[in-house]
Amino acid sequence: MRHDVSPELLDKLDAGKVAKLLDIPEYRITGALERRILQYIYSPRELFRFDKPVSSIEGGTAIFVEPFDIVRGFPKISRVLMLYPGIVKHFSSCEKVVVEEKMNGYNTRIAFIGDTLAALTRGGFVCPYTTEKANKLVGREFFHNHPGLMLCGEMVGPDSPYVPKSIYDIESLEFFVFDIREKVSGKPVPVMERRALVEEYGLNSVRLFGEYSVDEAHLEVTKIIKGFGSALNEGVVIKDPQMALPPVKYTSSLSNSADLRYAFEFYNDYGRDFFFPRVCREAFQSVEWDEDEESQRKRCQRLGESILQPMIKTINRKKEGERITETVQIRVRNLRTVDEFKEHLRLLGVDAIFEEPEPVGDEYLVKIRKIFKSTNDKTDSILRGELWS
Amino acid sequence: MRHDVSPELLDKLDAGKVAKLLDIPEYRITGALERRILQYIYSPRELFRFDKPVSSIEGGTAIFVEPFDIVRGFPKISRVLMLYPGIVKHFSSCEKVVVEEKMNGYNTRIAFIGDTLAALTRGGFVCPYTTEKANKLVGREFFHNHPGLMLCGEMVGPDSPYVPKSIYDIESLEFFVFDIREKVSGKPVPVMERRALVEEYGLNSVRLFGEYSVDEAHLEVTKIIKGFGSALNEGVVIKDPQMALPPVKYTSSLSNSADLRYAFEFYNDYGRDFFFPRVCREAFQSVEWDEDEESQRKRCQRLGESILQPMIKTINRKKEGERITETVQIRVRNLRTVDEFKEHLRLLGVDAIFEEPEPVGDEYLVKIRKIFKSTNDKTDSILRGELWS
Repeated sequence: MRHDVSPELLDKLDAGKVAKLLDIPEYRITGALERRILQYIYSPRELFRFDKPVSSIEGGTAIFVEPFDIVRGFPKISRVLMLYPGIVKHFSSCEKVVVEEKMNGYNTRIAFIGDTLAALTRGGFVCPYTTEKANKLVGREFFHNHPGLMLCGEMVGPDSPYVPKSIYDIESLEFFVFDIREKVSGKPVPVMERRALVEEYGLNSVRLFGEYSVDEAHLEVTKIIKGFGSALNEGVVIKDPQMALPPVKYTSSLSNSADLRYAFEFYNDYGRDFFFPRVCREAFQSVEWDEDEESQRKRCQRLGESILQPMIKTINRKKEGERITETVQIRVRNLRTVDEFKEHLRLLGVDAIFEEPEPVGDEYLVKIRKIFKSTNDKTDSILRGELWS
Repeated sequence: MRHDVSPELLDKLDAGKVAKLLDIPEYRITGALERRILQYIYSPRELFRFDKPVSSIEGGTAIFVEPFDIVRGFPKISRVLMLYPGIVKHFSSCEKVVVEEKMNGYNTRIAFIGDTLAALTRGGFVCPYTTEKANKLVGREFFHNHPGLMLCGEMVGPDSPYVPKSIYDIESLEFFVFDIREKVSGKPVPVMERRALVEEYGLNSVRLFGEYSVDEAHLEVTKIIKGFGSALNEGVVIKDPQMALPPVKYTSSLSNSADLRYAFEFYNDYGRDFFFPRVCREAFQSVEWDEDEESQRKRCQRLGESILQPMIKTINRKKEGERITETVQIRVRNLRTVDEFKEHLRLLGVDAIFEEPEPVGDEYLVKIRKIFKSTNDKTDSILRGELWS
C-alpha cells in the first residue's frame, strides 16, 4: 500500500544523496517511504530505517538525519543444512574457510555518528541501552582512527533485554566482534585483518576455531559441534577468509532445541514459521551424521520435549491465574537510559512492565517483565472453553 | 483481484436465482465470480463451486448447471481443545449431547442431481470415482423418496485415492453417514431421526457412543478416546441432538501423531500451518488429563518421532535416488471412471502417474503414484548443497 509522504519528512531525508551513496535509483527511496518500508524514527536519534530489504539494501539499514550518515544493515546469513555438499558448493571458489563461533546474544552494529557512538540492533533501531553499554565496552578510540568503519558483533550476557543467555560465564554484558565493515557500503574487512584490528584496540573477538581446507571443513565443523557436548553454544559461522563470498552458518541441535523451548513457552506470539525450519535442520543433521536408532530416539525425545514441555508449563501457569511474561534485566549507569529504553520498547511494540531500579555498586539493575499478549489471550480463551477456530 | 467474467459464463449461472435460493445479495455472487472464488468446473459435470466461504455460504458449495441444482458445502467443524470448559460453554443451551465417531476417511456429500447421483468431495468437486462407488454403495432408493436431501458421510477404506487408511477392516471402500441435510439450505436432520433414516435404507451410520448430559460428557469422551488404546481411531464429534447448534470435534493423540507422521513425509508440500495446531492440541490434552511425568515423556517421544522419522525417511529415500511419492489405489468397475478420475486429479493440481489397471474379479485395481514435487525439489536441492535461504 502506498501512502502520502509529508514534505517535512522528505525534507529530512535527502533522497537524492541517499540514492547516490547507496547506488540505487532515487525512486526506490521515495517508493520505500511511500510503502512505509523506509520508516522515520524520532527517538533516541532521528533516523530512517529500512524495515525490509529494498534492491541491494539490507533490511536494518539506517539513515541518520543530523548529522547525515548511513549505517548499512547486517546481511542475512544463509544456513547450510547438509555440511558437506553445502560447504563444498558455496565455497567452490575458495581453497580454505575460516570457522568462528556463532554466539548466542543479539546482533549489534556500533558506529560513530557525528561525535557520538550509536549501537544499532538488527532491525536498524538505535538501542539506547546498548549504546550506553557500547560506550563503556568499546569506547571511541577505534572510531577516532577508523570513522568510516562499523563494528559488528554479538552482545552477550545476562543483562540483555533481548536474549538473556548466561552460558558464557559473563557477569553483565560483553561485546564480541565478528565483522568489521564500511559503514556506508557494508564492505567487510578480511577475517584475519579484522581479528588483528580488534586485538589492537583491546576488544573481544568471537572465538576462532581454525582455518580448514574446503573439502575437509565439514569434518572439522562436525567435531566442533559435537565437541560442544551438552553446552548450549549456538553453532559456527563458516567464512571465506577474504570475505568476498557471504558466510554461512550451522547450528547445534541442542541450541536448536533451546530456541524451540523458548519460543513454545510463548507459542502464540512466535509465528508458526519459527518452528518449521528448526525441525528441518534436525532431520538433515540426523541424516548427514548417519545416526543410529538410539541417537535418533534421543533426538526425537529432545525435539518433542522442547515443543511440548514449555507449552504445558505455559498452560499450567495460566490455569493458576499467572500472567505469561518473561523477565529480563538491564544494568545501567544512567537512569535516563531506562526512560529512553522504555520508549524504545514502545516503538518496537513490546508490552513491558519496568520494576523499580535497584542500586548495585555504581549502577542500577532494572528488571523488566515482557508481556506476551497473544499467548496470554489465546491460552486464557481456550481454558475458558473457546473453540479453536 | 477482480477479473472480467465472460457473458457465456454469466449465462450458465443464473446469478439472480442462485442469490435468491442462497439468500444473499446477487452482487455477492457476481463478485465471487470476478474474484474467482466462485469457479466454473466443466468436468465430470458442469458446475460452479465456492472455493472459499462467502457470507453465509460454505466453501465447497456447488451450483450445478444442467439441470440447475445447489448442493451446500459441508460446514467446518470447530475443535474443542479442553473438553470440559469447551463442551459446557458451547452446549450451554442443551441438556444432552450425542457423541459419534469421527472416522478417518474423506468427507463426501451424495446428492441426486436430475436423475443421477453425484458424490462431492469437501471442496465441492464431483469426484467421478467416488460417484461410481456411491452408485454401488448407496444407490438411488433413498433419493427417490427424499430428492431434496443429501447424505453426508465418510468414505473409508484402502481403495481411497485421498485417505487410504485401513484401520477398520474394510475390504475396498465403505460409506458411513454422519449427517443428512437439505441440499439447498444445508439444514440438518436431528441425530436420532437421521440414524433411523439411514437404517431404514440399509445404509451405514458412523458409530454412536451414546447420549450424555452436558456436564458429564467430557468424562465420557475421555473414556472413549482412552478406550481407543493403540488403535488409530481418529476421535469423536459431539453434537446437539437437535442439530440446532453446530457440532464440535475432538481427536486422539495417536491419530494426531499419525497425521503429523504422514504430513512430514511430504514436509515441503504440507504447509507449516499443518503442524502448529496439532502441537497445541497435544499440549492442552496433556494439561487437561493432568499427565504424570512418564505419560508426558511418552507423548513428547511420540510427537518428536512423528515429526522427525518421516522426514529422515524422506531424505534417505531421496539420497538413494528415489522419487518422493505416495501410492494409492482405486478399484473401479468401469474403465471410463479411471480416465475421468485422471482428469479430476489434473483439475485439483495433483501430479500423478497411473499404472495399468489389473483385473480383480469383475473390477479393476489401478495403482496411482502421487508425486510430491515441492518435497522432491527441496530435499534434492539441499542434498546438492543449496543453502536454506
